[in-house]
Amino acid sequence: MIIDAHCHYTTEPAALHQFRDRQLAGLADAARKPATTDLGISDDTLIKSVAPQLKLQAERGSTLTILSPRAAGMAHHVGTEAVSRQWAAVSNDLIHRLCTLLPNNFAGVGQLPQFPGVSPKNCIAELERVVNELGFVGVNLNPDPSGGYWTDPPLIDRYWYPIYEKLCELDVPAMIHVSSCCNPNFHHTGAHYINADTAAFMQLIQGDLFQDFPALKLVIPHGGGAVPYHWGRYRGLSLSLKKKAIDHLMSNVFFDTCVYHLPGIELLTKVVPIDNILFASEMLGAVPGIDPATGYHFDDTKRYIDQVEGLSEASRHKIFEANVRRVYPRLDRLLAKRGAAA
Amino acid sequence: MIIDAHCHYTTEPAALHQFRDRQLAGLADAARKPATTDLGISDDTLIKSVAPQLKLQAERGSTLTILSPRAAGMAHHVGTEAVSRQWAAVSNDLIHRLCTLLPNNFAGVGQLPQFPGVSPKNCIAELERVVNELGFVGVNLNPDPSGGYWTDPPLIDRYWYPIYEKLCELDVPAMIHVSSCCNPNFHHTGAHYINADTAAFMQLIQGDLFQDFPALKLVIPHGGGAVPYHWGRYRGLSLSLKKKAIDHLMSNVFFDTCVYHLPGIELLTKVVPIDNILFASEMLGAVPGIDPATGYHFDDTKRYIDQVEGLSEASRHKIFEANVRRVYPRLDRLLAKRGAAA
Repeated sequence: MIIDAHCHYTTEPAALHQFRDRQLAGLADAARKPATTDLGISDDTLIKSVAPQLKLQAERGSTLTILSPRAAGMAHHVGTEAVSRQWAAVSNDLIHRLCTLLPNNFAGVGQLPQFPGVSPKNCIAELERVVNELGFVGVNLNPDPSGGYWTDPPLIDRYWYPIYEKLCELDVPAMIHVSSCCNPNFHHTGAHYINADTAAFMQLIQGDLFQDFPALKLVIPHGGGAVPYHWGRYRGLSLSLKKKAIDHLMSNVFFDTCVYHLPGIELLTKVVPIDNILFASEMLGAVPGIDPATGYHFDDTKRYIDQVEGLSEASRHKIFEANVRRVYPRLDRLLAKRGAAA
Repeated sequence: MIIDAHCHYTTEPAALHQFRDRQLAGLADAARKPATTDLGISDDTLIKSVAPQLKLQAERGSTLTILSPRAAGMAHHVGTEAVSRQWAAVSNDLIHRLCTLLPNNFAGVGQLPQFPGVSPKNCIAELERVVNELGFVGVNLNPDPSGGYWTDPPLIDRYWYPIYEKLCELDVPAMIHVSSCCNPNFHHTGAHYINADTAAFMQLIQGDLFQDFPALKLVIPHGGGAVPYHWGRYRGLSLSLKKKAIDHLMSNVFFDTCVYHLPGIELLTKVVPIDNILFASEMLGAVPGIDPATGYHFDDTKRYIDQVEGLSEASRHKIFEANVRRVYPRLDRLLAKRGAAA
């Protein structure tokens, strides 16, 4: 079984975008607010909307995709906290419908109703809802709800602890994933995403978060940002700042394989412990198009992993399936119930 | 000849720090302002202060080091524009004295008197002074004078053009290098530096800066941030956003080798054209200490380059010397005058 741990729903029906427009228009003119959160999207339209993903699953050979709302769409910095709450609920409900319609293809990960400067405590109701009522197996946690100005505290601050407590209680991981960026210095997929990954990992080095939350699991997407390339820097900084090897993070922190060329994947699998690598492609996402150097899509990351020399079958199994099931225990239980042995 | 293209003066005599304290104290109490910019540091004290660097040059086998004021020390966000101007001048003068005292060991790169929200035009006088009067071969340009909040425009904005015009006129490159960070989300050497490198390169992809300044040369330090690890992402983004291969940047953009482990250097030399790689170690800088995995200092980057298999002698010569002399033409002329053939 091959599980793709990081994909966003980037082929949403137009009705979702129309809802969002009306929702935000409602801030300026209450008369334009959407009257209902029923988007009027039929099951058939929903299923058709993910035809590209289903085609790629079949072509590339992945079994199941962990799907969450479009990352850039979360836009936590836009509007008000109430807008963010409604938008998260609507977006999560759509993911839930897809996972219910296509349970063999998708498992859900939720968007939290974050808002800059507002305690993450306020996200707990939606976190409980997506896990307990919608059956989601994780959430995306935005370390910078300001959208590129980084005005909230770092992830190791007690500010975030209510979320971590609930994640541990519910036994779900969080992927640390920013959203769109309103700072013109950072292209969202070319700088803001990668920088957030790097910043998050460095924050974790600086703190002692996993002493307080030994069961907490955090996934750093996009191959861990700059971290594996600068693994020597981070090992050195951990030793000099914390007097301990970087290993102290490796029971709790995981990197995905959204790295879009073979040399990058080779580096990742060489320096980061195999137990900490989760297969993912972010397909239909950040980098569209075909690499003229290979003739294949940039985001066909399975091909790169297949090509890494010296990677044992056991290691491949960990990356493609076992690690994902370990990090997402609710997904593991879901699959076990359906008869897929771990 | 082995030229180390990126080192900061991180072993400054205490008198420099005392000056800075008095300078900043003067903001609150004018009576505490330093009466003079003469730091009272003797030549002997200056020479002794760089004994660690000279020792490492000898041990590691580098010939000449391009030295600039401590990067984190620039702190462009602190104080006022006038404070920044005085601080840059004092810091640059110290580098100049070192380069004059030890001309075979050091060549100078300057700090600009930047200040957030203030036009880079105001830096031109100091830029001209360090090149024309102090004989410096380049400058560090801070893409985020705010120190971690990124409130100034991106590097491709016309805001920065006066600096680029002067750099081209003077025939010196700029290293894009941030300073200390007052945003608690970003550890300065563990996140802010690397993120700035990544953001800068992505800005260059988004713009057409080198159409306007075909002679401009920019050095992205710390191995190019996350860029080489995500080379596929950046190649793909360049193709999808600009409809052209990333090669269009490679006559103007260079990465240094401040990457502190062998697999990182292997990746860098594999994916980035050899002509675009400049040897550097940032020695006595970001990552102190010895890597327990190798028994050598993390920042002994020459060892990694020596170990890369399949790197031709011609390529090594480019990385260690020829590229640096091409990117820093004033250094090349200085060396040629001293009889070191290119």
